[in-house]
Amino acid sequence: VIAPADDAALRGAARMLHGRLVRTPALSLPQLAEAAGRPVVCKAENLQHTGSFKARGALHHLLQLTPDERAKGVIGGSSGNHAQALAWAGRALGIAVTVVIPHDSPAVKREGCAALDARILTYNRATEDRDAIVAGVAARDGLAVVPSADSRHVIAGAATAAMELLDDHPELRLLVVPVGGGGLAAGTALAAHQRADSVAVIGVEPQAGRDTELSLQAGHRVRLPAVPTTIADGLGHTIPAELPWAINRHLLSAVVTVTDDQISAAMRFAAQHLKLVLEPSGAVALAAVLAGRIPAGSEPAGVILSGGGVDLPHFLRLTNTIPAREDPVRA
Amino acid sequence: VIAPADDAALRGAARMLHGRLVRTPALSLPQLAEAAGRPVVCKAENLQHTGSFKARGALHHLLQLTPDERAKGVIGGSSGNHAQALAWAGRALGIAVTVVIPHDSPAVKREGCAALDARILTYNRATEDRDAIVAGVAARDGLAVVPSADSRHVIAGAATAAMELLDDHPELRLLVVPVGGGGLAAGTALAAHQRADSVAVIGVEPQAGRDTELSLQAGHRVRLPAVPTTIADGLGHTIPAELPWAINRHLLSAVVTVTDDQISAAMRFAAQHLKLVLEPSGAVALAAVLAGRIPAGSEPAGVILSGGGVDLPHFLRLTNTIPAREDPVRA
Repeated sequence: VIAPADDAALRGAARMLHGRLVRTPALSLPQLAEAAGRPVVCKAENLQHTGSFKARGALHHLLQLTPDERAKGVIGGSSGNHAQALAWAGRALGIAVTVVIPHDSPAVKREGCAALDARILTYNRATEDRDAIVAGVAARDGLAVVPSADSRHVIAGAATAAMELLDDHPELRLLVVPVGGGGLAAGTALAAHQRADSVAVIGVEPQAGRDTELSLQAGHRVRLPAVPTTIADGLGHTIPAELPWAINRHLLSAVVTVTDDQISAAMRFAAQHLKLVLEPSGAVALAAVLAGRIPAGSEPAGVILSGGGVDLPHFLRLTNTIPAREDPVRA
Repeated sequence: VIAPADDAALRGAARMLHGRLVRTPALSLPQLAEAAGRPVVCKAENLQHTGSFKARGALHHLLQLTPDERAKGVIGGSSGNHAQALAWAGRALGIAVTVVIPHDSPAVKREGCAALDARILTYNRATEDRDAIVAGVAARDGLAVVPSADSRHVIAGAATAAMELLDDHPELRLLVVPVGGGGLAAGTALAAHQRADSVAVIGVEPQAGRDTELSLQAGHRVRLPAVPTTIADGLGHTIPAELPWAINRHLLSAVVTVTDDQISAAMRFAAQHLKLVLEPSGAVALAAVLAGRIPAGSEPAGVILSGGGVDLPHFLRLTNTIPAREDPVRA
């Protein structure tokens, strides 16, 4: 494992990606500061190309390929966001993309891949081993595998979200970030680590999928006995990815968990006050802040809103709190 | 009437506002280009401070006040967004703000004003004359009136949204913009007019509130017989404001209208694909593009998404299309 920890790798990623991505806004508002008890700015990566931060890592990884690898094409397994990002980056660079995604991933994620001309293979996430499927197809078809998190190029690409946030808001002393495979958390931790000022990074997992929290407690990677059941479909990992883990175990200040109800409440808050549609996985860091799961303090905090890939009916269900008898959706 | 048409006024506004506002993103996506039949980028002003472009004009106007005017305080009448913007700008500059808003404006707009410490006066928009109320209180309390559209400073401030969009996307040859009082349209038209390349501007009104369209047809300002009934509560004007009209009659290429159903469809599209919560008034320009109300052409178009001030239950109702018997919100 070659650690991407040096400044040069992150600066290189920022340089390569400059002008190819949405410079997502850093949003703040009085109600959020009041609820959080500290100043908070939110990096709206749900507005990134294909609706999540994943576009950063996927594009950065593809930009590193040799001409021969580009010509043969790539493959990636994903709950949906990395797949869309890969399809988008592949189309931008003229690289054929195959994605392996769960058959029950949100339609908006599947259709996003199809609209970007990716070849789509589906699998059952409860019973099949995605990595094995990806490896098998890659070997058969001669494709380069682009991991969703376990790649130093993907991690360095993901780091550019936090780099932008810290450039825009150098006063931040704490970053709060969702943890799935751990690539975004690792990139964020590296971005924080390279700053002259001390910036802590706290990861957030859904309570049902706290493989990284358990791994940190154990001091080694722990595998959950079953695929987690949570509305945060993008964070249903059973074990931390290897390279992110090697970084996160040293650089994360803590990992905290949130319940599905806390995630839904954060989605409602984001819709009402931030004017943003977040998918459950994209709302966990905000949920941790709103639910008081982050240690108290007055230092300004940055929150990464990592994605918005949610089907509208599901979004409406999760954000609706009106009791059925006075349900305005039925009015 | 002093025309703010010269470059210097707009450049001055951009300079004064620089760093005080959210640099809202310009978003594009394949589904939108496909639906529109041309490249489209959307300027997400619903992410601006207080949830609409109004923060630009209100702050720019307040920055022009004399120390004496600042000390006495200001007053503004508004359907809600200008009121919140004024409250925000006043708090930022230490100026006392009074707002006059309809008693039935969205709660999120009223609460936004209250959270920003404004004094709130309400009125009945169907039966009372807002301008008379504002003028009366202003005279009694010695307050400076900040119009929501009828001010060259407000217009020049509003223009900075289109200036940013054209800076980010100099390829645009058409801008599509909501028309209420006409301040945003006028500012957008001035911003387009100052470019070396030809950029057309099309205004969009709700069908029930097409006072500007009728005025353009008549060649003079036309007053609607009654307050329009439309879900676009921010565009319920009965007559174009005077100064915006003087600009728009010369600089707008056309005004088109959209139905409430087309507005709801645009809100759904924005939520599902752009990951944005728009209020009905903020979605009319997008609605015009999606509904085929804009003359066909291949030139890239810019769309201003002007605001997101909508109560969540109302948003859920407007964006929900699932028939009741299979309503996922009840699942």
